[in-house]
Amino acid sequence: MSIGSRIVSGYDPERICIAVIGSHSALQILAGAKREGLCTVLLVREDLAPLYERFPWLYDYMLKLRSWSEIASGTIVEKLRSLNAILVPHAGLVEYVGVERAEKLEVPIHGNRGLFRIEADQHSKMRLLVDAGIPTPRVYGSPEEVDGLVIVKMPGAKGGRGYFLASSPEEVRRGLERAVREGLIRDPREAIIQEYVVGVPAYYHYYASRLYRRVELTGMDIRYESNVDGLRRLPPRFAESLEPSFVVVGNIPMVLRERLLLKVLEYGEAFARTVEQATGLPMMGPYSLESIVTPSLEIRVFEFSGRIVAGTNLYTGMGSPYTWLYWDEPMWPGRRIAREVREAALQGRLEEVVT
Amino acid sequence: MSIGSRIVSGYDPERICIAVIGSHSALQILAGAKREGLCTVLLVREDLAPLYERFPWLYDYMLKLRSWSEIASGTIVEKLRSLNAILVPHAGLVEYVGVERAEKLEVPIHGNRGLFRIEADQHSKMRLLVDAGIPTPRVYGSPEEVDGLVIVKMPGAKGGRGYFLASSPEEVRRGLERAVREGLIRDPREAIIQEYVVGVPAYYHYYASRLYRRVELTGMDIRYESNVDGLRRLPPRFAESLEPSFVVVGNIPMVLRERLLLKVLEYGEAFARTVEQATGLPMMGPYSLESIVTPSLEIRVFEFSGRIVAGTNLYTGMGSPYTWLYWDEPMWPGRRIAREVREAALQGRLEEVVT
Amino acid sequence: MSIGSRIVSGYDPERICIAVIGSHSALQILAGAKREGLCTVLLVREDLAPLYERFPWLYDYMLKLRSWSEIASGTIVEKLRSLNAILVPHAGLVEYVGVERAEKLEVPIHGNRGLFRIEADQHSKMRLLVDAGIPTPRVYGSPEEVDGLVIVKMPGAKGGRGYFLASSPEEVRRGLERAVREGLIRDPREAIIQEYVVGVPAYYHYYASRLYRRVELTGMDIRYESNVDGLRRLPPRFAESLEPSFVVVGNIPMVLRERLLLKVLEYGEAFARTVEQATGLPMMGPYSLESIVTPSLEIRVFEFSGRIVAGTNLYTGMGSPYTWLYWDEPMWPGRRIAREVREAALQGRLEEVVT
Repeated sequence: MSIGSRIVSGYDPERICIAVIGSHSALQILAGAKREGLCTVLLVREDLAPLYERFPWLYDYMLKLRSWSEIASGTIVEKLRSLNAILVPHAGLVEYVGVERAEKLEVPIHGNRGLFRIEADQHSKMRLLVDAGIPTPRVYGSPEEVDGLVIVKMPGAKGGRGYFLASSPEEVRRGLERAVREGLIRDPREAIIQEYVVGVPAYYHYYASRLYRRVELTGMDIRYESNVDGLRRLPPRFAESLEPSFVVVGNIPMVLRERLLLKVLEYGEAFARTVEQATGLPMMGPYSLESIVTPSLEIRVFEFSGRIVAGTNLYTGMGSPYTWLYWDEPMWPGRRIAREVREAALQGRLEEVVT
Repeated sequence: MSIGSRIVSGYDPERICIAVIGSHSALQILAGAKREGLCTVLLVREDLAPLYERFPWLYDYMLKLRSWSEIASGTIVEKLRSLNAILVPHAGLVEYVGVERAEKLEVPIHGNRGLFRIEADQHSKMRLLVDAGIPTPRVYGSPEEVDGLVIVKMPGAKGGRGYFLASSPEEVRRGLERAVREGLIRDPREAIIQEYVVGVPAYYHYYASRLYRRVELTGMDIRYESNVDGLRRLPPRFAESLEPSFVVVGNIPMVLRERLLLKVLEYGEAFARTVEQATGLPMMGPYSLESIVTPSLEIRVFEFSGRIVAGTNLYTGMGSPYTWLYWDEPMWPGRRIAREVREAALQGRLEEVVT
Repeated sequence: MSIGSRIVSGYDPERICIAVIGSHSALQILAGAKREGLCTVLLVREDLAPLYERFPWLYDYMLKLRSWSEIASGTIVEKLRSLNAILVPHAGLVEYVGVERAEKLEVPIHGNRGLFRIEADQHSKMRLLVDAGIPTPRVYGSPEEVDGLVIVKMPGAKGGRGYFLASSPEEVRRGLERAVREGLIRDPREAIIQEYVVGVPAYYHYYASRLYRRVELTGMDIRYESNVDGLRRLPPRFAESLEPSFVVVGNIPMVLRERLLLKVLEYGEAFARTVEQATGLPMMGPYSLESIVTPSLEIRVFEFSGRIVAGTNLYTGMGSPYTWLYWDEPMWPGRRIAREVREAALQGRLEEVVT
């Protein structure tokens, strides 16, 4: 019996709800589910509820939590199951309940729950990309090997925090020592030392459909980061004393040269296949590859997200220039998810679109 | 009798026209009114008419002016009233006829005309934001207090002109003396000396609906400024001798991290409430808060526009990722305005949507 | 007999196909033709076919080529004619078959084939702009005249390669000598030495409609270039040793201040008129002017594309904020082309929309 069959057992396919945690990309997921005519459940911490209460038409049930950790509690799990809820995971899930509890959550998830563990470790993440045959930046085994510009990332660095740049072994060592002193890491080996690829960032959004047996390209974005994207507006004499930071504040839309799209699709498909091999579970739902495009038009992937990225919020309601190649209707990721779940339910194949 | 009731007296609610001055955001306002099936009137200076004459389907009446100041003339006012016209004010109105005449214009305005006076003075503007409890950059009382990076703004600085950066009392003084010499100001105290918040700019677009009793978030943008957004493309050895300027040339779309949206909405709502207290008139229609988002995800608002901003032109015809959370149809600000006016007219509540 | 009448002779107006070469903007052109209900033909090199094979619903016929040069072969030309195919040219056509063969291709082209020759030479290109009365950067006759910042462009520089910046006669000479050594040019006089206008880039998309007798503004974009748009994210101490490159990787959407639109439209119209004078053939279809907007809001055009630019890919499926001013339906350039061809066929005027 597959994990999908076990976890949706007892569910009424005619009364499926889409459940989401109130942050990150919840609004577009709710709006997408409503557009597909599905019931929606919002799990939200009390202090954040007022955002969603301004959009009461987007949810049928709001489950207020005193703390995020309640997501994995028996009461909430039971409630979700009684509502025939399928949870759409975003970055919040693992952040709020931890890898262990996310993996074992007794609620059907539209996504591959085997990826949570891999995503929690920078080294496993990079290995997955390499195994998929996707070009990645060089990873240095130790500060001593550093012979060019590198970016050093602490584990669990989120939203752009916990990074630093360096260009010599000495600089890397000093940065790691500081990170240990500041309690960001306990052992310098927890950090990953990656070649800093010079080029421009581009983030690709995918959707792995089990019903359509394909990986769709649903959009792209560029991150808008504070303060680095503001520093460039300052004359050098003012900017030079300020240290850049890379905290993601928002996203800007983009399209890529058509000649690069084949590679982008192939990398996305190779990723999905490799995830299936690595986890033993099917890949499904939204995910993202995060790349630098070099001047020789190479795509080097330095990061991935095994679930929906916030950059997809750009396409709420309208879809992106890429979704219109697949659909003759506005199809943003939040709606795409609901479409897949709804069609699976209609076809009696719910167990295929969850893990 | 409310100002609204007085100013629309004699209007035929079944034959309302939307009037707009031909510049800034006129095209999207006209297109929105036509989409809602309303009659439209365009007030335009002869030399600019050729732009709009390329879109004759967007207006029912074009009133050509020899000079902008005719807007406030008896002939035009009478004509507008005879057409049952409601004027949608944008930056052009006060710029072309001045605060006094804009305030007293005997034509219904979809917006709060009490804001014109406040907007004309940098100090009153900042005070309004502070009164609303919205975090703002520190304002320095005199050059002597300056202890970090500051931006000095001349009154009525528009489209990015009349700003300069400085980082010491001496630099501020020198800049102000130059501004006096160049006739930009008569007294250094007319300028405002503001902390330069380091982060990234983000501009939020709102719509205050009286019929729906809510403030809607209609979109966001980043300004595209000449030459500052071009200088960053030059190697430092070429760029260092060029002084940056901040003239707004256009706008780029963006979305913000969902976790920041509650604050953005709360600030927008607090702004609307405070405007009502400060002016004694209801807030209504489009407006904008202009912010820097810091690396710690604080939003610091350094400016506002009490009426539609040109950044909303990004969403003409399609709406933004945020309007689709409220509407199941494309709803850009120009159409939103017309929808409100049309519904108010149908409900016999026209007086509520004008001042 | 016009070139149009001659080249479509024998075509069945009820069975017209839109043909496109598989790269650049093929996806949006195919999607647009399908939206208009037209038959589509894709010409594609075998190794690139897998991209399009992921979208089989977008084409009725895929003609696979072993090499691009087959496009101009008798077999393919005959096949295209037998399918009543009208070719939509993009940058790929001249790049793949050369100017001579593109000019003489015995297949109807929706565009002005007289432009191919002009576009192949930087000096003729700039002369056309000057003849149209469009403000352009100063062109220097020789390195000796250089008295400010200049950009030096090699002939056929594509996608941002083959450019360099300089600010003195000596630097220009050294750069040209290097270009000769590297085989980019044979004679330094093949390069064009252009004033580097300081401001921000903006690319305007037009569509010249013969049926509607007008030039439509269909959108705008900013190019996203590697590595120059990434360098600005590096602290100066890391960036200063890296040479910027300007390879186009993608595009970002923008809108322009409304007060600049009249100029943008006038320049676009003047361009179309001048092309007709210079080539003796009607201007038709998509094209682009590529400009810098200065802080004094002057628009200086430094380049053009006589056919569709890849920046229009931004608007696939949804149209741009500008297309909605003309149409009450989503109208991206790919669809606009098909609409014109379809309407011309229906009206028995096919010969007017091809050369």
